[in-house]
Amino acid sequence: MRAVLFDGTLHLAEEYPTPQPAAGEVRIRTTLAGICNTDLEIVQGYAAFQGVLGHEFVGVVDQAEDPTLPGRRVVGEINIGCGRCETCRAGRPHHCPHRAALGIRGHDGALAEYLCLPAANLHPVPDDIPDEVAVFTEPLAAACEVLEQVHVRPTDRAIVLGDGKLGLLVAQVLALTGCRLTVVGRHESKLAILAARGISTHLGDEGLDGDADLVVECTGRAEGFQTARRLVRPGGTLVLKSTYHGQATVNLSSLVVDEIRLVGSRCGPFPAALRLLARHLVEVTPLITALYPLHQALTAFEHARQRGALKILVRP
Amino acid sequence: MRAVLFDGTLHLAEEYPTPQPAAGEVRIRTTLAGICNTDLEIVQGYAAFQGVLGHEFVGVVDQAEDPTLPGRRVVGEINIGCGRCETCRAGRPHHCPHRAALGIRGHDGALAEYLCLPAANLHPVPDDIPDEVAVFTEPLAAACEVLEQVHVRPTDRAIVLGDGKLGLLVAQVLALTGCRLTVVGRHESKLAILAARGISTHLGDEGLDGDADLVVECTGRAEGFQTARRLVRPGGTLVLKSTYHGQATVNLSSLVVDEIRLVGSRCGPFPAALRLLARHLVEVTPLITALYPLHQALTAFEHARQRGALKILVRP
Repeated sequence: MRAVLFDGTLHLAEEYPTPQPAAGEVRIRTTLAGICNTDLEIVQGYAAFQGVLGHEFVGVVDQAEDPTLPGRRVVGEINIGCGRCETCRAGRPHHCPHRAALGIRGHDGALAEYLCLPAANLHPVPDDIPDEVAVFTEPLAAACEVLEQVHVRPTDRAIVLGDGKLGLLVAQVLALTGCRLTVVGRHESKLAILAARGISTHLGDEGLDGDADLVVECTGRAEGFQTARRLVRPGGTLVLKSTYHGQATVNLSSLVVDEIRLVGSRCGPFPAALRLLARHLVEVTPLITALYPLHQALTAFEHARQRGALKILVRP
Repeated sequence: MRAVLFDGTLHLAEEYPTPQPAAGEVRIRTTLAGICNTDLEIVQGYAAFQGVLGHEFVGVVDQAEDPTLPGRRVVGEINIGCGRCETCRAGRPHHCPHRAALGIRGHDGALAEYLCLPAANLHPVPDDIPDEVAVFTEPLAAACEVLEQVHVRPTDRAIVLGDGKLGLLVAQVLALTGCRLTVVGRHESKLAILAARGISTHLGDEGLDGDADLVVECTGRAEGFQTARRLVRPGGTLVLKSTYHGQATVNLSSLVVDEIRLVGSRCGPFPAALRLLARHLVEVTPLITALYPLHQALTAFEHARQRGALKILVRP
């Protein structure tokens, strides 16, 4: 099969072996996949992954032990716990120390004609959610994770820092709480997507007070932390969404004195994301910058890296 | 009056002006004061404070607008908010950006014969709590702050890292929840205080798994963070109690991937601390290493810096 392969350099493999489902797994024919910033970071060396990239997808079950599954349109959770350790048994397979993660750790990903996942990871997609919307389920679930971890009050003053793909999704989810939200970004065209939906935006971080009850750092850059730290009030909460290569210098004593709560936030609940998409409460199609056929995937990656690009989709 | 003064170097001032209470303030005659690690850090340059040191005290009201106050034995909260800003009006004077803090920021402290504080900061001490116990109210309140900020479950696996004064208080407070607690320290004699009360202890951090739901970092040292990070499980909570001079290098991306919650924690609720002391649920007298008269305060500071020392008290 055709697949986007990273083995130190990025390739389009034309005759990569079609995956065979292991016990408990199903095979899925990918109908649409997305390029995430994490994919771009992996190509820069983050996570030390080699294999087929991609973890955002929608597809149709092609082969399964359960005879009711083939032909069903699905999205899938990306973490594959071992199922046996204490963490898995405690209901936290996404934190299993032995876990694989689709296209990120020890398991080939979705930027290919076929992928395999455990049947337990799948969520059927309602018929009225088109592929171009369903492919956002995984990043939207990651946005919902903020509300899973932090109690956001309707009276809270909240800031989303970053107007990339994840920032635009987190902003739309937070805005549903009724909180006093401002989205701080560096791209007028991206902020305009939110402004058109009645969400307050601010170009650049100058002129903003450090009085936010909640700041969600979605810049994807190490420098984002210091800005987020400046914007959150003492006693407030700073949610970290960015993963990148490298370390940061942090004044931990000032976190103590100001009693800041830092919350690392990664993957989230798929069913909640599908409910928001089904009810049109989050608009994702304005985030699509371009769609490429799989054989042009390398061009798609180049496009995804360009300033101003939002979601680049790839269709096998 | 006699006072312990830091003006770049540490002095015992013999004829420091006796403080006069401002509007809303009372004057307190100090009967007993404690030396905190923060005092030792200030002498090293932390917080850039100059003035009379000390913020742990018990005393007797000497002069007040309210005629019922003089003669009352009191302890006092150390943060003095402006009372007018948005933060103060929101009920968070301890985070007021214009605040003073007794013996730490813009307000002379308690290592002296007299100190002044707003009447609103005072808490009367029940008669059956002796001075040697009441003087621990402020640090015990800081220990209680952990439970104010984090929901500690009786089934949680918790670690207190550090067997200094604050660690021994935090450990005793956490143990009251019934959680599965281990205190990790570097001093057999200090850990023995807890072991004698039936609290599990561990000398050094070797051989411990990274499976704690909660780690409270009380080492007072920058290196403590990396150890605490290693001991907390993915999805767990790491409470930061240490303040020190300098910055730390932190892998923020790993906090995201492991969805760690970092919680900076400083001052806490005095009434709760007084209730625990009144009910003998926390034992503080084994933490007293020595008591010096005020005129030997410089010797007291030297003693407080020695390895193995716990609480050094000073009596005016």
